Amino acid sequence: MTLTPEQTTLRINTDRLRDSLDRLGEVGAYDDVDTGLAGVRRLALTDADVAGRELVLGWMRDVGLQIGTDRIGNVYARRPGTDDSLAPVMVGSHVDSVATAGRFDGCLGVLGGLEVIRTLDDHAIATRRPVVVAIFTEEEGVRFGTDMLGSAVAAGRIPLSDARALTDRDGTTVGAELDRHGLVGPVEVPIAAPYAYLECHIEQGPILQSHGSRVGVVQGVQAITWLELQIAGRAAHAGATPDDLRRDAALAGAMVRVRLDEMVKSGEYGTMLATVGRWETEPNLINIVPNRILMTVDLRNHDGDAMTRALADLETHLREIEDRTGVTITARTTAQTPPVDFPDQMQDLVAKKATDLGLTHEPITSGAGHDAGAIAALCPAGMVFVPGLYEGISHNPREYSTPEACADGINVVLQAVLDLANRTD
Amino acid sequence: MTLTPEQTTLRINTDRLRDSLDRLGEVGAYDDVDTGLAGVRRLALTDADVAGRELVLGWMRDVGLQIGTDRIGNVYARRPGTDDSLAPVMVGSHVDSVATAGRFDGCLGVLGGLEVIRTLDDHAIATRRPVVVAIFTEEEGVRFGTDMLGSAVAAGRIPLSDARALTDRDGTTVGAELDRHGLVGPVEVPIAAPYAYLECHIEQGPILQSHGSRVGVVQGVQAITWLELQIAGRAAHAGATPDDLRRDAALAGAMVRVRLDEMVKSGEYGTMLATVGRWETEPNLINIVPNRILMTVDLRNHDGDAMTRALADLETHLREIEDRTGVTITARTTAQTPPVDFPDQMQDLVAKKATDLGLTHEPITSGAGHDAGAIAALCPAGMVFVPGLYEGISHNPREYSTPEACADGINVVLQAVLDLANRTD
Repeated sequence: MTLTPEQTTLRINTDRLRDSLDRLGEVGAYDDVDTGLAGVRRLALTDADVAGRELVLGWMRDVGLQIGTDRIGNVYARRPGTDDSLAPVMVGSHVDSVATAGRFDGCLGVLGGLEVIRTLDDHAIATRRPVVVAIFTEEEGVRFGTDMLGSAVAAGRIPLSDARALTDRDGTTVGAELDRHGLVGPVEVPIAAPYAYLECHIEQGPILQSHGSRVGVVQGVQAITWLELQIAGRAAHAGATPDDLRRDAALAGAMVRVRLDEMVKSGEYGTMLATVGRWETEPNLINIVPNRILMTVDLRNHDGDAMTRALADLETHLREIEDRTGVTITARTTAQTPPVDFPDQMQDLVAKKATDLGLTHEPITSGAGHDAGAIAALCPAGMVFVPGLYEGISHNPREYSTPEACADGINVVLQAVLDLANRTD
Repeated sequence: MTLTPEQTTLRINTDRLRDSLDRLGEVGAYDDVDTGLAGVRRLALTDADVAGRELVLGWMRDVGLQIGTDRIGNVYARRPGTDDSLAPVMVGSHVDSVATAGRFDGCLGVLGGLEVIRTLDDHAIATRRPVVVAIFTEEEGVRFGTDMLGSAVAAGRIPLSDARALTDRDGTTVGAELDRHGLVGPVEVPIAAPYAYLECHIEQGPILQSHGSRVGVVQGVQAITWLELQIAGRAAHAGATPDDLRRDAALAGAMVRVRLDEMVKSGEYGTMLATVGRWETEPNLINIVPNRILMTVDLRNHDGDAMTRALADLETHLREIEDRTGVTITARTTAQTPPVDFPDQMQDLVAKKATDLGLTHEPITSGAGHDAGAIAALCPAGMVFVPGLYEGISHNPREYSTPEACADGINVVLQAVLDLANRTD
């Protein structure tokens, strides 16, 4: 089916999208001391996260979407197609956030999907296939330690029972929180495959802005490995314990951190990124040699083979640091996703729609993990990136993409949805 | 005055001293998960610390000691002399503890002083000079950030107003806690100089045990410098921020920790010890480059000049790490004590009494700070160390000195007190 001229010139409502982003950004807002700005804090399955979902669900019901929920709390809000037996085109992302978030990460994909629906409704445009707007649970992985959790369960990569058993720092499980909030729905996982999946997301990096590209055509998502290191040394008096009798867990942890940096800067592992974001010290007192360190390691790489080599080499480094410091280091993998390449036809579709809309664009690889990377196991998936100001700073209240930039990305999604949802092949 | 034969053969009651240590160790006890032992947690001026003081004060009153308290809450429990106008011989230490303590650190000095009094009473022995048992406030420095606080105020090294203004992590001041517990007494600071000061303490290191020495004759206390480093970087997304655009506060902190270790192992600063005991990360999330680290640095050195050189060189290293990582590092000195040499006549006295008691002994330098180091500014001060098991582990529930080892040290104190308290020179 060919689009009508009216459809090809269809544009979303920029102000309405901005307004939705602003209103959702007020849920879980906090005063951020470092930036002096209002930040967003909606960690997955907290009351704030559920309040954010409720706001969006209300809007979805207002436009008549049929709300379905699966076993892990993922939401599928469905606009019927003229042939409702066909697999739907899915547009989605997440509304949970990190602890120091801005208003765009994830929310743009979900509210952009809602804006696509609202725009279709404004113009009374029917599509042959259903269109589904999805909200995935615990994309950030900050609270329960595994990112893209909901979409990975939906795609069948993580078993539901494993996901429900994950715990936060206080020992609360995903399952208990899903039950407490009444978020367990009847849709079985893995879910039935959509026809195609589209996600618009802020870039969270500096590339599009520095090149002046209005949208990015995402080629794929880099591999991610999360490790949790437990370093066990021995508590001792800071003044009376000779250096050669120490087993200093903090020193060993610092050596691991510096070694990771040396690995990154060596260039031997391609464009590897390494972050030690969390660090807990026991007993954490000024005059006691720490006996225990918990540290997390976040490794990213576009190249899956380089990731594998880096993990093997890191293991060797850990053993060497154990030998040098007398500590024992236990590494546990808490998340591991392979690199994902989005299919050419989806990249081509996104690029074509951007060109049709007169938007400069370029291919880009995603540094962050996204739900699209998980759903790509079920159906052809594609992503659209839009630039952010301030070098694309994200996971920070300064995160900001202009209303026009947001609209650019969602207009690409709208045009791609119109195309995909009217295909019969 | 020469001691009578009865006095030279006088010995303290080993079981009574052990019983007092055990009973005080039950105040503030907690189940230590790492060791499976009962630990002690009586951070200065907490309810647990005050409960510990109250127990000891009750015992002091039971033996008729006159209780005096100074402006910073230090306790002076006085047994009158036959010439009560003479300056007293003071025996003391502290009963506050670190968060993961054993039963001996500080308590042995205070309860040993009480045991000396009880032994004198048992035998109805009068001394020419008064004997005072002192309990000093916040020796550990763990809660309010400055160690030997009470004794430093008593000796006039730290002004009372500065001490009262110190805050804990929650912003509670020393002054507010002293007032809340009613611990401010009428004795002015600095206090009147005692005639002499003696402190028995566990070694908190492995030397005496490994050499088979039953007591250590302490030559002095090493210099201590405490620094608090604030490292300010920039929060950023762990996956989407290229390495060269990062300002990673945790990486910079790790570099500082490793550099300190290189300084220690270089041998260029004598027997310097370096500990990073406390480390706080913001926002402390797995997938965010940390924007802020607070880390403490505890430096010890027998050689004051080497300490000075180390601090100057560390400053240079901090600037270099700033340049390499793009962070800013602010260093604040929270405690700084010079090395202390105890006078020869006090070392000789301790050595002579140990010899007279048939105890093997050796000279030793203290790795830890002690109240004796502060009081040494007021009067001749000396210290006796006793060995601990398990390489002298301390600031840990495994800290353990046998009842016999404790008695050895306190018998030396008893004999030294009998000698000093009967001098008229």
